[in-house]
Amino acid sequence: MSDAQLQFRDELIQHGLLLPMGVDGLLGRSGGFERIVDGIDRCATRLGVNDGAEVLRFPPAISQRTFEESEYMKSFPQLAGTVHAFAGTNDRAHAELLAIMERKEDWTTGQRMTELVLTPAACYPVYPVVASRGPLGVDGALLDVCSYCFRHEPSVDPARMQLFRMREYVRIASPEQVQTFRETWIERAKSLMTDLELPFALDVANDPFFGRTGRMLATNQREQTLKWELLVTITSQEKPTACLSFNYHKDKFATNWNLRQASGELAHTGCVGFGLERIALALIKHHGFDQRTWPTSVRERLRL
Amino acid sequence: MSDAQLQFRDELIQHGLLLPMGVDGLLGRSGGFERIVDGIDRCATRLGVNDGAEVLRFPPAISQRTFEESEYMKSFPQLAGTVHAFAGTNDRAHAELLAIMERKEDWTTGQRMTELVLTPAACYPVYPVVASRGPLGVDGALLDVCSYCFRHEPSVDPARMQLFRMREYVRIASPEQVQTFRETWIERAKSLMTDLELPFALDVANDPFFGRTGRMLATNQREQTLKWELLVTITSQEKPTACLSFNYHKDKFATNWNLRQASGELAHTGCVGFGLERIALALIKHHGFDQRTWPTSVRERLRL
Repeated sequence: MSDAQLQFRDELIQHGLLLPMGVDGLLGRSGGFERIVDGIDRCATRLGVNDGAEVLRFPPAISQRTFEESEYMKSFPQLAGTVHAFAGTNDRAHAELLAIMERKEDWTTGQRMTELVLTPAACYPVYPVVASRGPLGVDGALLDVCSYCFRHEPSVDPARMQLFRMREYVRIASPEQVQTFRETWIERAKSLMTDLELPFALDVANDPFFGRTGRMLATNQREQTLKWELLVTITSQEKPTACLSFNYHKDKFATNWNLRQASGELAHTGCVGFGLERIALALIKHHGFDQRTWPTSVRERLRL
Repeated sequence: MSDAQLQFRDELIQHGLLLPMGVDGLLGRSGGFERIVDGIDRCATRLGVNDGAEVLRFPPAISQRTFEESEYMKSFPQLAGTVHAFAGTNDRAHAELLAIMERKEDWTTGQRMTELVLTPAACYPVYPVVASRGPLGVDGALLDVCSYCFRHEPSVDPARMQLFRMREYVRIASPEQVQTFRETWIERAKSLMTDLELPFALDVANDPFFGRTGRMLATNQREQTLKWELLVTITSQEKPTACLSFNYHKDKFATNWNLRQASGELAHTGCVGFGLERIALALIKHHGFDQRTWPTSVRERLRL
């Protein structure tokens, strides 16, 4: 499988669609690749256009406090990225830093935590914002977000970047409202994939929880079908790539951030996430490296 | 000045244009704010549309190696952000981490450097990419980039975010070609600001170099007029805000990355940077919090 991933990555680079940046999973994008991403992003907008979602856009980091409140480190310690900076305040400290760098020693151990953690999933900044507004109305809340997300999982697989864009719709409401939201988006996603002429499968999935406890969490998540994924074969038929996910968090995030329904009860939350680069890669894999030769209906759908 | 900054930030939040995220300089953006940013981005595209720039888009981090090659820490150690991650591989290490977090102690000291550094300026990833292609042709290179950039300078000033977007055109060519590029873009930027009905001034400037050596570097940069800024009053007439900058690096970056002209001589480099959030904030300050009431010609120019 890894060979197929490496080959596809190299083909993408040879065709000028992606650019190597010297680290596995860190890749530049050409203008042509970005046109595809923009087209998918527009499709995601059109699919939700009548829902009245509130559009919010966040930079690619959240506060350490929000990160800790999310309890991310309990589940995915291996994936998070904290932002650290030089703490020296005078010329002497600066000279010492430069001397360490000059000697090719590790200068990064002197870096100190800032208040920032890279965003692990596009919806994380949403919850404290909505919580700060007080209890929800009877219709709950619906948000439209998109941001670069970071996951520390260096890989040669071009569909497993360390920094990638996730477009999400997030529902914060009653259990029934959240489940309806998720079912609606599963249907919309199927219809989008059909329009884009991408063969897909839907399957129950689990997040990449860490360690032994993580295996239990994964089993639990699957048994409760809290996570569905829309999978497309990119480099492996046996292990197709999750291009969208449909997540039901029950009251986990609502508990973390005290999100309340109009009734005073804890809200439930759910989200649908579009992996923008992954869908772009699926399109390239199935329709070719030159987007000018793609099926006309697919090009029109993406407004390429 | 700080009072005026705080007041403007709070007004932006009250009008729902920006959203607090719990850290100074870390702010969410509303859909309305993003429409303005998109409009400015489109203006930057239109101004350069006939130049044939190669469009490249990079994620908001570069490799540690590229960062070190840039020699950024010599000049701006206080601004850089390195990305660190949990290095534990087993359940015991994970349990220890969680115990530290449970005790509210500093868990971040156990984070270890990844291979990533947050992008300090949108043009940094460009130089090694262009260098990897070998010597330039006689026309040199012209790139169009945009990315989230990080600078660790927490501030209540909404125009001094820690994470903000910079759109840049980058010229890598002969000294004459780079200087012509810079002059062309100064004229284009003046014309854009006039169209957007923003009062502005152009002035020689310097980067925020660190420490005593930094003061010499700043003086040197000013004496050689290597940096011009287009300034607009946002919260202070005495200290207007740099909304665009026009930079001539001479052969500094070319030396760092061995960028060569067709002749074999070191190239020179220069760039024009649009501070997308800053221009959006200038427009809001001068035309009002409600973009529907802005002058028609400004709205049309931005395609709002």
